[in-house]
Amino acid sequence: MTDDHVTLAHGAGGVASRRLVAEHVVPRLAVDPDHPGAPLLDATPFATSSTRLATTTDAHVVRPLRFPGGSIGSLAVHGTVNDLAAGGARPLVLTAAFVLEEGLPLATFDAELDAMAAAARAAGVRVVAGDTKVVERGRADGMYVVTSGVGELATAPGHDPSPTRLRPGDQVLLTGPIADHGTAVLLAREDLGIDADVCSDTAPVWPLAEALIGATAHGAHLRVLRDPSRGGLATALNELVLDAALGIEVHEPDVAIRPATRGACELLGLDPWCVANEGCLVAVVAPEVADAALAALHGVGPIGALAARVGEVVAGPPGRVVATTGFGGRRIVDLMAGDPLPRIC
Amino acid sequence: MTDDHVTLAHGAGGVASRRLVAEHVVPRLAVDPDHPGAPLLDATPFATSSTRLATTTDAHVVRPLRFPGGSIGSLAVHGTVNDLAAGGARPLVLTAAFVLEEGLPLATFDAELDAMAAAARAAGVRVVAGDTKVVERGRADGMYVVTSGVGELATAPGHDPSPTRLRPGDQVLLTGPIADHGTAVLLAREDLGIDADVCSDTAPVWPLAEALIGATAHGAHLRVLRDPSRGGLATALNELVLDAALGIEVHEPDVAIRPATRGACELLGLDPWCVANEGCLVAVVAPEVADAALAALHGVGPIGALAARVGEVVAGPPGRVVATTGFGGRRIVDLMAGDPLPRIC
Repeated sequence: MTDDHVTLAHGAGGVASRRLVAEHVVPRLAVDPDHPGAPLLDATPFATSSTRLATTTDAHVVRPLRFPGGSIGSLAVHGTVNDLAAGGARPLVLTAAFVLEEGLPLATFDAELDAMAAAARAAGVRVVAGDTKVVERGRADGMYVVTSGVGELATAPGHDPSPTRLRPGDQVLLTGPIADHGTAVLLAREDLGIDADVCSDTAPVWPLAEALIGATAHGAHLRVLRDPSRGGLATALNELVLDAALGIEVHEPDVAIRPATRGACELLGLDPWCVANEGCLVAVVAPEVADAALAALHGVGPIGALAARVGEVVAGPPGRVVATTGFGGRRIVDLMAGDPLPRIC
Repeated sequence: MTDDHVTLAHGAGGVASRRLVAEHVVPRLAVDPDHPGAPLLDATPFATSSTRLATTTDAHVVRPLRFPGGSIGSLAVHGTVNDLAAGGARPLVLTAAFVLEEGLPLATFDAELDAMAAAARAAGVRVVAGDTKVVERGRADGMYVVTSGVGELATAPGHDPSPTRLRPGDQVLLTGPIADHGTAVLLAREDLGIDADVCSDTAPVWPLAEALIGATAHGAHLRVLRDPSRGGLATALNELVLDAALGIEVHEPDVAIRPATRGACELLGLDPWCVANEGCLVAVVAPEVADAALAALHGVGPIGALAARVGEVVAGPPGRVVATTGFGGRRIVDLMAGDPLPRIC
């Protein structure tokens, strides 16, 4: 048992802790791939090419740990690099902190370290520091993973994305179909007897952000980017209008939802606009660059292929998101209230 | 109940999440004290004055949440700023991620946010980004707090502290008495019937690191700094000699331990050399600057008052820490094995 499973000793800072880090974490997340045997330091030095940086942190408590399309390890990398991307920052370095539960199979931990390493490589970031703590059986549902990151701002000075930059007439772009991530996790959670082919969209979105910054004169005509994760598209748009004191009108038929995802949401009683995404971006751009921005997104590859113009910033009613249907109807899109979807990320 | 306690909805990304952040987190940890109403962004921009940085992360799962001398909130700030300090980096910005348990009184969360804010102010860092997740009752023991940080390297280029810089003859300095933190937490954990006046030493150690860098020609004669937290002094010294492939001899009578702490450790059956510290530093310096470094530490204030020269780097046996007693005896100081002290930080 002791050899194959996490024990409290693994978190206590002595011989077992050192072995856990040296034999499991370092070979997989290699603090510095150029110096695999380098001593582990209390803090890890890194160099930047800019003094204009951004940082963010994300706790991941998704249940179950693995789901179609991803797992807590890949999700933990994408959650943080995507927040950096939405801040207009090229992801540079990540840190990873693990809260492990006593009794967790070490093979499970290893698999998530491997998933993190692969996701970090694909996203072009290095995991440069980490920490591992262990809590008693039952007190962490396997594992929780917190990632934090630092990125270099890629927008020109004075053009950091912010909801305060929104102006009436600005165009709202959305990359990719919505609701895949949350739906996939919910379907994986229990045997709901729903046979739906839904995969999480978890993926790094920096290539999309970079394309948008390039198509908007280093961000001069890019108002804001938003990673519509927890709370979904509805929450992301509502947060924008609340912070901007403007309105947004969305043309509902332009918001892509895969048929399998739409069907599963109906069976689960979920509004897909409120379901988490982990691989798409909402962007608001000045009207004069909207076509170029959309073309740039389409040029990124599969992740940008379904990017579409879905709406427009309007003067009012301020703080309101309104969806228009294909038949001239209008409905208010609220911040998600009522029953939450806990532990989706 | 819903109004006074954390619920799963607080972690789901909708209305309740937004209120938790807007009404509890932001007013206390104010993302930017100059712009208290500024919109919350996916990632927070910050500027540095250098491109030579360091980063670290620390998960905190201490039980109980509060103990004499501190609490999980202050500890979470000190844990990360002290790792940065030990890396030779002036702490600049922090991020904080919370895993909260359903049913946690909001007053408890608020108290820890206040403790973090006070500790961050005292340490001269800003908390610039955060995340809050909620897990079901029983799955987080109240709350876990992960902090990550970025600091600016204060050592001159090429003089980053590292165990690979150790040379025989180097002097080992220790600030402050050891074992107070872990002992205080253990005494607080259960009603052990031990009436000991022991307080955690949790405190920011950057002023000590800064003094050492100043006294060693911008780090040219500073070999390494170490924050002897989990696993205590014994683990910190053993990690140094393992990474340096040299030995260290420590003169045991020079290692300060408060009488109350020593007595409590005896009653608890603990080796104080293996007990966690959260407000002291181990420094290894070139012999020619040892006196000046010690004087600089004494000049910092109460936190440096008991700094002492406790040992010396020796050629061998490599990888061994040996303690010499006042009577000419010698004992090997091992990495902590055997019974761990879990959840001390």
